[in-house]
Amino acid sequence: MLAVADLPEVEAGAGLGAMLAAAADPGDGDVLVVSQKVVSKAEGRVVPLAEVEPGDRARELAAEHAKDPRVVELVLRESRRIVRAERGVLIAETNGGWVCANAGVDASNVAATDAVALLPEDADASARRLRAEIEAVAGTRPAVVVADSFGRPWRLGQADVAIGCAGLVVLDDWRGRTDRDGRELEATEVAVADQAAAAADLVRDKDAGLPAALVRGLDRFVTAEDGPGATAIQRPAPEDLFR
Amino acid sequence: MLAVADLPEVEAGAGLGAMLAAAADPGDGDVLVVSQKVVSKAEGRVVPLAEVEPGDRARELAAEHAKDPRVVELVLRESRRIVRAERGVLIAETNGGWVCANAGVDASNVAATDAVALLPEDADASARRLRAEIEAVAGTRPAVVVADSFGRPWRLGQADVAIGCAGLVVLDDWRGRTDRDGRELEATEVAVADQAAAAADLVRDKDAGLPAALVRGLDRFVTAEDGPGATAIQRPAPEDLFR
Repeated sequence: MLAVADLPEVEAGAGLGAMLAAAADPGDGDVLVVSQKVVSKAEGRVVPLAEVEPGDRARELAAEHAKDPRVVELVLRESRRIVRAERGVLIAETNGGWVCANAGVDASNVAATDAVALLPEDADASARRLRAEIEAVAGTRPAVVVADSFGRPWRLGQADVAIGCAGLVVLDDWRGRTDRDGRELEATEVAVADQAAAAADLVRDKDAGLPAALVRGLDRFVTAEDGPGATAIQRPAPEDLFR
Repeated sequence: MLAVADLPEVEAGAGLGAMLAAAADPGDGDVLVVSQKVVSKAEGRVVPLAEVEPGDRARELAAEHAKDPRVVELVLRESRRIVRAERGVLIAETNGGWVCANAGVDASNVAATDAVALLPEDADASARRLRAEIEAVAGTRPAVVVADSFGRPWRLGQADVAIGCAGLVVLDDWRGRTDRDGRELEATEVAVADQAAAAADLVRDKDAGLPAALVRGLDRFVTAEDGPGATAIQRPAPEDLFR
């Protein structure tokens, strides 16, 4: 794992793929993990709070949970539904299908004061676009993962997971495979893309402006096709016990 | 990250620390991630199902969920409470405080047929013991993480997390620290031990008998003291929205 240093400040409309190719020099079998925040900035998904007019439901929820009603308004716009609203925490299912705190609406590492970043509208499309841009500039096709830090039920702290992906096997399916003694394995699907995101986070310093990392040695999971993306990790709601 | 090869088959009473020291040659700043299964085997936490007499509640739950009543009996013995019992899945809070499927009772990679492995009784104590054994043999004090593969709400697939830990900062606390623009970071605590476990899983082949991996470069999180262990990652039930 290598942190990608020397990335210039990213603004809306930035050619992020070319910037990443220049800074990281990714090879064909590499996995380039890019933080959601920098992707959102490049895609203009930063909203000044002064431009947000909270509606009634946002005002109500904000008052109940001691939150900024403009932030809550954005959370509601970014969500299909609120999974939990308790003790000052809003857990939402985003329009893109991710279950996370505040629908990913987040103020940290946004240069403008009084502005927040939203998740990319379609982070799988973002990953595919970055991969194509890198290929156009550098001639290589690394896998690209867009990663965000999510909290977890039952466990404290945050771990990075994949919310966008191109060119990586996101779930390595072990169903039907056996252990050395011929017994079927109960670990049925390994969350490769999430684990790559978590690994990359170990080398990124959140306050040092290191928004990307290269993970090498996962060539066996890197594919020529962009594949189904990170949405393939989403557990369908009818199979889910916790929403 | 380096997979640790050449570990002999581990049986109850094995001197696992010495075996790991010989196979992995861990240095002081290294993090040695060991799979729960091999720790459980060394600690004799493998139970032949023929020795298990299921009680009434186990028979009932097993019938409802099409499970082996002997396995369900062990799940109940290993649990404080069942968090969800739906659609053939038992999510339990273990006596040790972990929330996971089947209380960690698992048949894969157990050499004996018709036997299952339980989680270590106290995986933090296991990690401390392994660390001390390694120091006694090799003179180094790497951090030790005992890892298991857990499923996750909302997301398909399994990712490795830490259930035992000695000598590693398990949560890197960022509260109060600021980003480059002086704004407080919303990613408040980084789940270092869980992310180290996930990273290590990327180099272990579950069917190739590679029960351990070394993660290098995390020296800044490795401590002389064994510290509070992985139980510090457990979200207290009163603060948890999903149990």
